[in-house]
Amino acid sequence: MSDGLTVPFALAAGLSGRLESSSLIVVAGLAEIVAGAIAMGLGGYLAASSDTEHYVTERAREEREVRDIPSAEAAELTTVLASYGLSAEESAPIVTALRKRPEAWVDFMMRFELGIERPNPRRAVLSALTIAGAYVAGGVIPLAPYMAIGRARIALVLSVIVTAVALTTLGYVNGHFTGTPPLRSALYTALIGGLAAAAAFLVARAIV
Amino acid sequence: MSDGLTVPFALAAGLSGRLESSSLIVVAGLAEIVAGAIAMGLGGYLAASSDTEHYVTERAREEREVRDIPSAEAAELTTVLASYGLSAEESAPIVTALRKRPEAWVDFMMRFELGIERPNPRRAVLSALTIAGAYVAGGVIPLAPYMAIGRARIALVLSVIVTAVALTTLGYVNGHFTGTPPLRSALYTALIGGLAAAAAFLVARAIV
Repeated sequence: MSDGLTVPFALAAGLSGRLESSSLIVVAGLAEIVAGAIAMGLGGYLAASSDTEHYVTERAREEREVRDIPSAEAAELTTVLASYGLSAEESAPIVTALRKRPEAWVDFMMRFELGIERPNPRRAVLSALTIAGAYVAGGVIPLAPYMAIGRARIALVLSVIVTAVALTTLGYVNGHFTGTPPLRSALYTALIGGLAAAAAFLVARAIV
Repeated sequence: MSDGLTVPFALAAGLSGRLESSSLIVVAGLAEIVAGAIAMGLGGYLAASSDTEHYVTERAREEREVRDIPSAEAAELTTVLASYGLSAEESAPIVTALRKRPEAWVDFMMRFELGIERPNPRRAVLSALTIAGAYVAGGVIPLAPYMAIGRARIALVLSVIVTAVALTTLGYVNGHFTGTPPLRSALYTALIGGLAAAAAFLVARAIV
């Protein structure tokens, strides 16, 4: 969502450095929002699908190894535990215990040897819709002033204000949920938006 | 990089539905590339920094628990191992062994209880530079035809060709490295670019 706020905001700000009227800025902004939402939403879908596929493939391999070459797999488990400082004698009981439970053994190897977690199969679709929806919702905020006001320079001022408020709020809420200090998160998120917009504005003005 | 290819490509294609001359398309495209590179590069930097911070905080908490309340932490370890079907008797030897090695014990809990890996501290900067660089490198490809050719519709045709080639190649190489079948990855990547551009084109034409 912060990309959805930042990039259309910066693009519109950049074009305000070149255009008198808002109409073409709205066209460019909406085209960007639609393109960004599709590219990032489908990109997120593909990434999540590929995670699921990777998990399924690796799990099938581990299951095969546990079934067909349990001794080699037990040796692998001993090696993994040795990396935590356990001697072969110390890890023997856990190796024996897991050999009795092939399913749990596979779970253990997935987590320990490969460090990958079972992805939620519905995550791919959910991830795509969330990303695309957030991008659109974010993008509409900085563009709204250009839709309402015909003169680009005046719309820009209003766009700066609403986007700054939105980015700060978003950064604050985001910090609250991720454990980053909320005020710092709010400041950084707004700063990124400001930097991106300033750079876009300068680039748009610099081009002959 | 595929976002960097797709979004500026789609934006330029969308504006080609409205503008005769390439010059303003180049302005909008470059403003988008700069804004996207900054937003995504700095966004990647913040995400990676926040991962590192999260790891450090959680690790400090585990270290405190291992030092101050080892019995409670040992009980936690037994619970975690029980989720893999190990009885308290079966997990006793590994608990005893890890209690002798606090550092390894913390490593074990980080991996097992929390499932988080130690992030590379230099990853944040590297991640930011890679994302921003890839976005710029990707974005220049679909825009190059508009820089060279003044008439937008002709530039669009060339942009479709070079972007299709670039997205297909990128998807193929990406599939090769991630384990997704390369041809399928190539097809999907190109398809996303095509969909995004078609949507942007339609939106730009539909706006009065």
